Formats: sequence, structure tokens, C-alpha cells
Amino acid sequence: MTPTRPCGVWAPAVTPFRRDLSPDTERFARHARWLLANGCSGLAAFGTNSEANSLTAEERMALLEFLVANGVPPHSLMPGTGACAFPDTVRLTAHAVALGCAGVLMLPPFYYKGVSDEGLFRSFSEVIERVGDARLRVYLYHIPPVAQVSITLPLVERLLKRYPRTVAGLKDSSGDWNNTKAMLDAFAGAGFDVFAGSEAFLLANMRHGGVGCISAMANVNPAAIHRVFECWRAPDADSMQEAITATRAVVQKYPVIPALKAIVARGLSDDEWATVRPPLVDLTGAQRESLAADLDAHGFKLAA
Amino acid sequence: MTPTRPCGVWAPAVTPFRRDLSPDTERFARHARWLLANGCSGLAAFGTNSEANSLTAEERMALLEFLVANGVPPHSLMPGTGACAFPDTVRLTAHAVALGCAGVLMLPPFYYKGVSDEGLFRSFSEVIERVGDARLRVYLYHIPPVAQVSITLPLVERLLKRYPRTVAGLKDSSGDWNNTKAMLDAFAGAGFDVFAGSEAFLLANMRHGGVGCISAMANVNPAAIHRVFECWRAPDADSMQEAITATRAVVQKYPVIPALKAIVARGLSDDEWATVRPPLVDLTGAQRESLAADLDAHGFKLAA
Repeated sequence: MTPTRPCGVWAPAVTPFRRDLSPDTERFARHARWLLANGCSGLAAFGTNSEANSLTAEERMALLEFLVANGVPPHSLMPGTGACAFPDTVRLTAHAVALGCAGVLMLPPFYYKGVSDEGLFRSFSEVIERVGDARLRVYLYHIPPVAQVSITLPLVERLLKRYPRTVAGLKDSSGDWNNTKAMLDAFAGAGFDVFAGSEAFLLANMRHGGVGCISAMANVNPAAIHRVFECWRAPDADSMQEAITATRAVVQKYPVIPALKAIVARGLSDDEWATVRPPLVDLTGAQRESLAADLDAHGFKLAA
Repeated sequence: MTPTRPCGVWAPAVTPFRRDLSPDTERFARHARWLLANGCSGLAAFGTNSEANSLTAEERMALLEFLVANGVPPHSLMPGTGACAFPDTVRLTAHAVALGCAGVLMLPPFYYKGVSDEGLFRSFSEVIERVGDARLRVYLYHIPPVAQVSITLPLVERLLKRYPRTVAGLKDSSGDWNNTKAMLDAFAGAGFDVFAGSEAFLLANMRHGGVGCISAMANVNPAAIHRVFECWRAPDADSMQEAITATRAVVQKYPVIPALKAIVARGLSDDEWATVRPPLVDLTGAQRESLAADLDAHGFKLAA
């Protein structure tokens, strides 16, 4: 993996499907290249917004290989690899390392609830030991509203102590700034890189020692989010932050993943892009019209 | 699949691992045969208590094939096949049908939370249509405390209407008898077979039109649970029910899956049996001694 540590705005790239629900590699690579050309420093492919857990391990690996073979530099990739079964996590992680990815974003095993920090430590440890590659950089993925299994501060501390080179950072999608701030206060000084899981906290994250954000909205609003990252020390940073937060609020009135895909579909005049895999449901025609009207009223336009 | 519909006591068989955490096919087949010889009508392999979601799809298929090749009749198997990604569910389900299994126990996709009945209907429908086999019998797996995604009555109604032959029943692990009773009241008359997810509700389930139970404790206490099933109309059924509920209460003071494995390990004087995969954690030595003492005081003994 590259010695340059990931920072900036990383997109949990949405995964396009054909109408028959098969992954669409061509549309995926085009979207990836567009994101990198429009302000994203990299792609956290196979995140929650990518419907990663609705894909098989084989589908994920094939998509990742296609990106790398089609103009996406591996050092701009941080694929999600955390599965419920550790051998799947090992396989996906080793595959990402072999491709030269900058790091991996690792969910905890999320089927069992109320598991102990000891059990989660063993899970991550098993994966790191079995991958056994000095190039591996693990970014822990804390998203309790969805995974319902948390990455706590004591767990991070223990993992950092045991694997100081490998455990590189965390994405905090708790939606709780106090938790992000606690992670920053405890670990940012030790070279542990914290990404906000929402661009709504991007400026606050930068001001407290974070390194950027990995946020759903980077799929459709990457340039404006990137400007906040780039200019966070500028006097007008607060107003730029307000603007991206306001755009986010428009989209959040709808189911977010189907809405992101509907926005891409509209921007590209390509209806098939709106397809989601179950259990998600695509927006209704009425929802898509309403979302489009809301975004028009807000003055939002997808970059060409 | 066999025309005889599953009923009675089915064990969500615990999955043995070697100390290196690899699945132990030999111990698994021995445990399966012991369960069938001691009161279980069948095995709901790869349930929650089987650590199914800590296994890869390939590991599950290999274990299932080993059972069938080693004396476990396919008509006594109802493997869990529900995964987050529907193509995995399709693959596991088609594999079980091809082996001649009595049915499959299907979790809903469990990563996304707050999904709609429409999204879950599409998930199950996609699987049923793609497997496309008249022999398929689906038992829906409702376990909201773990999956955090529910199988609601309106969803069952819609699935039964669309797939009356294929959607055969449900395991209710909600722990809420009112929910089980509502399922029985609504659908048992239509040939929809409800299994209680705990033997604590076995007698109540039988009295209200259910067909049996699929319960963790069947791994260690199958004979006594079977007697309640067999004799549910007998005058002393209530006292038999009280006895199995009391045994359950002893075990439930401990983390259940590690406790079940510790009981098997002790009964067989085979320490390796106690191994669990992370994120679960095996009982400490002190916990194992305490559990053994509690069971001895209770007069419980694993059948030879």
C-alpha cells in the first residue's frame, strides 16, 4: 500500500445494477472516474451506501478488479471488507492488499448483537494475523445505527496498542459528534486518522485533528464538499460548510441510497442507474419528481 | 423435498470448530446423528446457535454435504440459508434443495435496518423465483432480537398469497408469545407451520396449532423436549413443560452458544468442542465450572 495516508473526501461509491440486478461494472468505473475528477481524493467502495452487504464476496472482488483495470489507481481505493464470517473478511482484505489498495474499511461482524469488546478484538485480530501483510492498513468502521455493533474507545485503544502500524484510522458514522471528538481527543495525536462519516461534521472534524470525511453525499456533491476540506482554514469555511449541510438536508428527506442513485440517473439521463437491490426499494416516480423539484429549488446541479 | 412436512423438535445444531477455528466435519456429523437418535426430528443446521453467519457460504455447503454423506437423511435437514446478499441466499437455497433437504430456514437480509415490507417481499421473492424449484419449502426466520429486521404478519400474508406452496412456515424467535399466537391465529389454519423458537413455548405452541419447536436447548436436552412434543395432550404435559423450562433457565444464566458447546464438551470429555468463532467468546474456566455445578445441582446429565 502507498506510504501516503488517505485524507480528504472519500466517496462510499454507490454500486450500479442493471435491471436484472447484476452489478454494472462499466457504469461503476465511469462513476468512480467521475468522482475522482470532481473532488474526491478516493473511493471507499463497498460501504453502506454502496449496498456492499447486498453483494457477494465474488461480486465485490470482480468490481474492484474492474476499477483497477479501468483507470482507478489502487492508492485511491479503500474498499469495505468487513463481513460477518471472518474468513470472508480475510479473503476480501487480502484481495484488496494484493491489488495495492490504500487501506480497507472494516465493519465489525454485525450479526450477533451485544458482543463484547473481547470478541470484537479477537475478530479484528484474527483477520489482521491471517492476512499477515505489512502493507495492510485497517480503517475501523463505526456505524451503530446500521451495524448495531459498536467500535468503542477501549477497543480502538487495545487494537492500536497491539497493531500500531496496521490499525490506521476510523470512519465514525455514529452521527454523534461527541463520539467523533472523543476519538480525536484520544487517538488523533498518535497518528490515528479519523474520517467523519457525514460531511455535516467535516469542518468540525478538520478543526479537531481529523483527516476528512467519507460520506454518502460525496457521490453527488463531491466538489463542494472537497472545497470545505481544502479551505477549512479559510475565513468563509463556515458558510461553505453550511451550504453542503443544506444540500444534504434536501436529500435526507428521502431514503438516501435510492435518492443518490436517482440523482445520478437524472444527471446522466440514464434511468437504469436508479436500480437498487432488495431489501432496498427504489424511489417511486412521485418521489423522484419531488426530489428533483427540491434539488432544483435548492439550485443543485450534478457536475457534467 | 419430502412430502412429509417437518414437525417436532428440530435442533439448530451447534457447529464444532477445531482450535484453529476451522469447521470440524467429523464432530459435526457425530453431533447430528446423536441429536437424531435422542429425540430430534430434524436439524435446523446453520441457525443462530450454529454460528451460521460466522461461516462462509462455502463452509456451510461443505458441512451440509458431509452430513448427507455421513448418515443424516436429507429429509431431516432444514438448513439456514438467509444471507444479506440475495445471490448468496439463492446459492445456499438451491444447494439445499438439490441435496433433498426438507426445507430451508430463511433469515431476512439483516444489514439494513428499518427496511420496508415491500423491500423484504422483493428479497424473498427474488430468491424463490431464482431458485425456481417446485420442491423448495421456505420457513421464514423471525428473530428480531438478533437480526433486528422483522417478519411481520402482513409480510407473511403477502408471501403466502403469492407463493402458497413454497412458503411453508415460520420459526418465531421473537421471545414474544403474543406474536407466535398471532401468527398461529392468522395462518396455522392455512397449512402454515409455526415452530416456536424456544422450547419454553412448546406446549403453548402445540395447544394453539403449532407444529413443534426449533430451539437452542435441543442441542443438549433433546429427549426431554421431545417428550413434551410427543405427549402434549397428556395430563402431565404441564409438569414436563415446567421441567424443560427450568433446565433452560439454568443454561440461560450464561452466554448461550458458548454454554451449549461447553456442555457438549463436558459430556464428551472433549475440550476442543467448546471452541467458538469470534465475535463470540468461549466461557472462562470459572464460568464452565459454575455452569457444570449449576447443572449438576439441577440433576441434568447429557445422554450418552
